[in-house]
Amino acid sequence: MVRLKGFQKLTPINEALRIFFHGLRIEKLRKVTVPVHQALNRVLAEDVIAEENLPRFDRSAVDGYAVRAEDTFEASQFTPKNLRIANGNEVGEKEAKQVWTGNSIPKGANAVMMLENSKRINDEIEAWVPVTPGENISKKGEDVSKGDVAVKAGTRLKPQHLGLIAALGITEVNVVVKPKIAVLATGNELIETGNKPEENQIFEVNRLILSVLCQELGAEPFDLGIAKDDVNEIVKKLKVGLEKANAIITTGGTSVGASDLVPAAVNSIGKPGVIVHGIAMRPAMPTALAIAHKKPIIILSGNPVAAMIGFEVFARPLICKMLGLKREFRLEIKAKITRRVSTALGRRSFVRVHVSQHGEEFLAEPVSTLGSGVISTMTRANGYVIVPENREGLEEGEPVTVHVFDNIEVVDRSV
Amino acid sequence: MVRLKGFQKLTPINEALRIFFHGLRIEKLRKVTVPVHQALNRVLAEDVIAEENLPRFDRSAVDGYAVRAEDTFEASQFTPKNLRIANGNEVGEKEAKQVWTGNSIPKGANAVMMLENSKRINDEIEAWVPVTPGENISKKGEDVSKGDVAVKAGTRLKPQHLGLIAALGITEVNVVVKPKIAVLATGNELIETGNKPEENQIFEVNRLILSVLCQELGAEPFDLGIAKDDVNEIVKKLKVGLEKANAIITTGGTSVGASDLVPAAVNSIGKPGVIVHGIAMRPAMPTALAIAHKKPIIILSGNPVAAMIGFEVFARPLICKMLGLKREFRLEIKAKITRRVSTALGRRSFVRVHVSQHGEEFLAEPVSTLGSGVISTMTRANGYVIVPENREGLEEGEPVTVHVFDNIEVVDRSV
Repeated sequence: MVRLKGFQKLTPINEALRIFFHGLRIEKLRKVTVPVHQALNRVLAEDVIAEENLPRFDRSAVDGYAVRAEDTFEASQFTPKNLRIANGNEVGEKEAKQVWTGNSIPKGANAVMMLENSKRINDEIEAWVPVTPGENISKKGEDVSKGDVAVKAGTRLKPQHLGLIAALGITEVNVVVKPKIAVLATGNELIETGNKPEENQIFEVNRLILSVLCQELGAEPFDLGIAKDDVNEIVKKLKVGLEKANAIITTGGTSVGASDLVPAAVNSIGKPGVIVHGIAMRPAMPTALAIAHKKPIIILSGNPVAAMIGFEVFARPLICKMLGLKREFRLEIKAKITRRVSTALGRRSFVRVHVSQHGEEFLAEPVSTLGSGVISTMTRANGYVIVPENREGLEEGEPVTVHVFDNIEVVDRSV
Repeated sequence: MVRLKGFQKLTPINEALRIFFHGLRIEKLRKVTVPVHQALNRVLAEDVIAEENLPRFDRSAVDGYAVRAEDTFEASQFTPKNLRIANGNEVGEKEAKQVWTGNSIPKGANAVMMLENSKRINDEIEAWVPVTPGENISKKGEDVSKGDVAVKAGTRLKPQHLGLIAALGITEVNVVVKPKIAVLATGNELIETGNKPEENQIFEVNRLILSVLCQELGAEPFDLGIAKDDVNEIVKKLKVGLEKANAIITTGGTSVGASDLVPAAVNSIGKPGVIVHGIAMRPAMPTALAIAHKKPIIILSGNPVAAMIGFEVFARPLICKMLGLKREFRLEIKAKITRRVSTALGRRSFVRVHVSQHGEEFLAEPVSTLGSGVISTMTRANGYVIVPENREGLEEGEPVTVHVFDNIEVVDRSV
């Protein structure tokens, strides 16, 4: 007879994360050199140091005339100052030399008069306004000084970072190798999409969802396929995962029933095995966290919604750590909840909401949370609200923090 | 003599957008069929209709025993109800049949008793709690009913959408073809990164920045390279762009100087040509908007920061429209500005800020805005604040809306 009961003790999320990351020694991933134009969203493995000043020389910030500022003092449209166009590459007293945006500042000049503030008459200009020394000049090194850290290690590279790196003349960067995350689904009832399901069979979708979630974060998923509810089969696939990947994520077979074979399989392959099982959260309560052969294994529920929330809470910070990122939180916005929501005391609840913008205000409409198997609650939501363990729900109109995972609809916009 | 002056009239941003989109007839892009696992962030070209119910059958949401709810009424741990394990596939009066999460509900049963609320003793179970009809059952069609629109056309596909589509057994989807955006930089001073710059030369980085910005939105950049400040050369490259791409973005040669050849080149290739030139904004004031051969051409400043802000304001909504998306706004959060900022009256100003989270509060620190050529103001910022045309700046401590374009650092976090 199998001993059938609930989890004897549910571990709070913060405690579970602490135990998990305390037990893990996350190995630093290798770095790899990639062309700058292919480095979008990769994580920089080492500081990019400026080997040159940026700009490399004093540069005109506008189209106009390089002048000596002193020669323009007290100029106005009614009492213009007349300056001769310089012959050579140098600007002497009461001289001006035409420059376009980006041109270097000729010797002798210390400011640039904008074209629109002057008038050219043959080989002279009329300066209509005074300029101050340094005006309209981008100073050498103003953007980045030689020797400075232009972009820090551990930065996820966005278009602006790539632009700055390229502006320094750099064509390749060292980024962190994508961590490989093996993904395994378990369950006798599961079949691959594309097949014809028999009665009782369902399409396996967790591997797809988790794989694209990994990709979004900059990890590389490794597909371990579907295992039947059979310890030997699960063990075999887990061993492939340990060999090929930096971490494993499984789904299914982790509640309290007799079919909960994944924790057993994990425990059989290496120490310490499962270190947390049963989390004080909803959904995703049956989540387990394990370590084997020094590699992290996250054992998620088979319910797609619970699997996604479990990924959010445990796999997301893991992947960030592997990449050497501090931690990327979801963007948080303040909203008002539109309806009362009840949640279970003692569990941290993840309430899916659809948030939209109405003028200056954001409204969060709870999406019906019937069952963690209902994937459409995730497609109708664009964020979630965390209800802490010591609350039994949210009151209508209560201010909440929404963690945003999809675009926000603007119903009515002031600006 | 070239007539040298400023723009006679600056067009407000909203007016510029109205003129531009009014003049454009954006052709619907073709659709293309891609495997679901490659459809992340693509835009759905047509509704995905459920051809089956999801779930396809009444399904257990938990591990436990399928029962007749009536047989459990008034059960407690002290007065359990004893139920026999059913022999066949049907559940009769006072019978129970073991089911795992996802299993179909046997005939006769109308609820599932969770394992942890029961105890198995040989061929009987003790039911310790009452269940209500329907309890712990995922009803057929509860997630999506046959014939329903599961995911709407015009949706940018996130992991949850792909999961829902796959759960319906669908392996391929029709998405909108990526719009091709030709990108051209102009300027005699520009050289490609990787080369050794001579005095006065600078590395061209706008094509890189704009290309990755296009990629982020799901468009495909097409590189037109660098053109010298020469109308014929610019025209030649623009013609290639018109032939190969759905839209063109150029940088440089668009202020009021004699080197402002791009508007002239655009006007020479087709009607109506430039329809807006000079926008009441800062940075990016010299931006021009044009249409030639029914294709949109966005003429941006050569300053990288101005080019990025110009892209944000004009190219971003254009690409969204081409993709058939309503409009994707940047995520907006409320913050307090930490310092006084002054801006020009009559211009909509884009103040770059570094926003960070301190407990429940977000603080926005203005990044020094010296010169729109200073790319590092974009790498030090993670968002921007819009100061409207009728304001001359922001007061210290003023509440502002930050449009977020990079991760937000959490300095101190309450939850």
